[in-house]
Amino acid sequence: MEKLSEHGCFGGQVAYYKHNAETVGCEMRFTVFTPPGAGGKKLPFVTFLAGLTCTEDNFTLKAAAYKEAAQSGLVVIAPDTSPRGDHVPDDDAWDFAKGAGFYLDATQSPWDRNYRMASYIAQELNGLIVENFPADAARQGILGHSMGGHGALTLYLKNQDIYKSVSAFAPIVAPSQCPWGRKALSKYLGDDPAVWAEYDAVALMKKYGNAASRPTILIDQGRDDPYLEEQLKPHLFEEACVFVGQKLDLRRHAGYDHGYFFIQTFIEDHIRHHREIL
Amino acid sequence: MEKLSEHGCFGGQVAYYKHNAETVGCEMRFTVFTPPGAGGKKLPFVTFLAGLTCTEDNFTLKAAAYKEAAQSGLVVIAPDTSPRGDHVPDDDAWDFAKGAGFYLDATQSPWDRNYRMASYIAQELNGLIVENFPADAARQGILGHSMGGHGALTLYLKNQDIYKSVSAFAPIVAPSQCPWGRKALSKYLGDDPAVWAEYDAVALMKKYGNAASRPTILIDQGRDDPYLEEQLKPHLFEEACVFVGQKLDLRRHAGYDHGYFFIQTFIEDHIRHHREIL
Repeated sequence: MEKLSEHGCFGGQVAYYKHNAETVGCEMRFTVFTPPGAGGKKLPFVTFLAGLTCTEDNFTLKAAAYKEAAQSGLVVIAPDTSPRGDHVPDDDAWDFAKGAGFYLDATQSPWDRNYRMASYIAQELNGLIVENFPADAARQGILGHSMGGHGALTLYLKNQDIYKSVSAFAPIVAPSQCPWGRKALSKYLGDDPAVWAEYDAVALMKKYGNAASRPTILIDQGRDDPYLEEQLKPHLFEEACVFVGQKLDLRRHAGYDHGYFFIQTFIEDHIRHHREIL
Repeated sequence: MEKLSEHGCFGGQVAYYKHNAETVGCEMRFTVFTPPGAGGKKLPFVTFLAGLTCTEDNFTLKAAAYKEAAQSGLVVIAPDTSPRGDHVPDDDAWDFAKGAGFYLDATQSPWDRNYRMASYIAQELNGLIVENFPADAARQGILGHSMGGHGALTLYLKNQDIYKSVSAFAPIVAPSQCPWGRKALSKYLGDDPAVWAEYDAVALMKKYGNAASRPTILIDQGRDDPYLEEQLKPHLFEEACVFVGQKLDLRRHAGYDHGYFFIQTFIEDHIRHHREIL
């Protein structure tokens, strides 16, 4: 692991790192915000998963999350959205392959060698963070935006021993039922819908049931989001949560679209949501 | 003037525009944040001038200014840093010509045709804003970063009938006395130091004197800024302010560098500084 740069921010630091990631067979970058006064203490932490075409930079530069994270004493991790490097297979499309790893472990060639973002985020990166930063393995949450909202919800539901809190901005809640998702799932995982269901938050919510003891899930969605009807379909997740008794705070906001101006408007609520649970 | 996009943000809107700018002979872009509840009212407004290599986008995406601007009821304008377009003369250097207009009116060929950012900002853009947005011509301030801090301080001092408040992050306070400034001033303005003095905040502060009635100038400077000693030299401005009795709140912050993580940490203080004066 190598530190690329470090910047003072709200009394803490934002730092950029790269490391050789075994899980995905390439060099990966991520950022870490460390709040002031960590000292030798282990603090709660959250990982933010970004959306299609993004890198570790989008959230770090544009989400305006660090003022509240500094006040809440929360470590914030922002990883990249896919494996990178000239040797990693790619595709001309903007919504598949590089910048579009969909936070799953691919089973189909040639994607299965590098596109293992589910294991990378929940196991390898995670371990690296706990080992090297003032981050408490027992108090971690996950959140994300769009494709990263899908990643946050699915990784949370499948790894409830790891993640104790979850939230999302405009998540793809049912990739099995939207064009972005169907394209990615069929290429990464093949054509078996039973395999797809392992990476579909609506299907997982129904599968895992017994939700009464889980904390509330917070989701913000802009009503003017151009992807709302065709790709995001938050009502499907709402129905699944009702079905299993999962507490859900799904807030629909008039006048907001799919971008980071929407995210920065509500990010402080998400930071506090995680802080309260963790 | 054409609206390129509009995004909900903290109850208000961030919008991107382009227009044919006569002063600089090209199409120019800028952004406008309008706080919620403007209605038919004319609100106070500030213009943020960005630094070398920037466009209208850097501040808009990375400064995290709009939460406090929404709460303060302040309109915020972010223009580009130079003329643009294939017909506009350029230079291979990153610190001269496009992205580096230095907020002056050039007198030397070939720069004098387009590089007239002083008049563009203080006259043309300004008029356009007051005409088309809920912005009160009588209550406006100016702020900026690095080269844009130089722009804010010099435009303020030369246009006190227009600008009622000023602040800066890590400004170039004495371009006549630093490499970035000497390079730009000699190319844009020729070799006469008397002409340079018209675009040098330290020289202008001494020239305009009689400062007791002017409000406090707020400047934030990171102590870990790599440009501090060679390019920025805030102590020269501090001395000039003492010399003429100008109230100055120059805050030096350990652990902060020259970037937008530094700016976002202190931007709310700047928004409030302007709001209190305006």
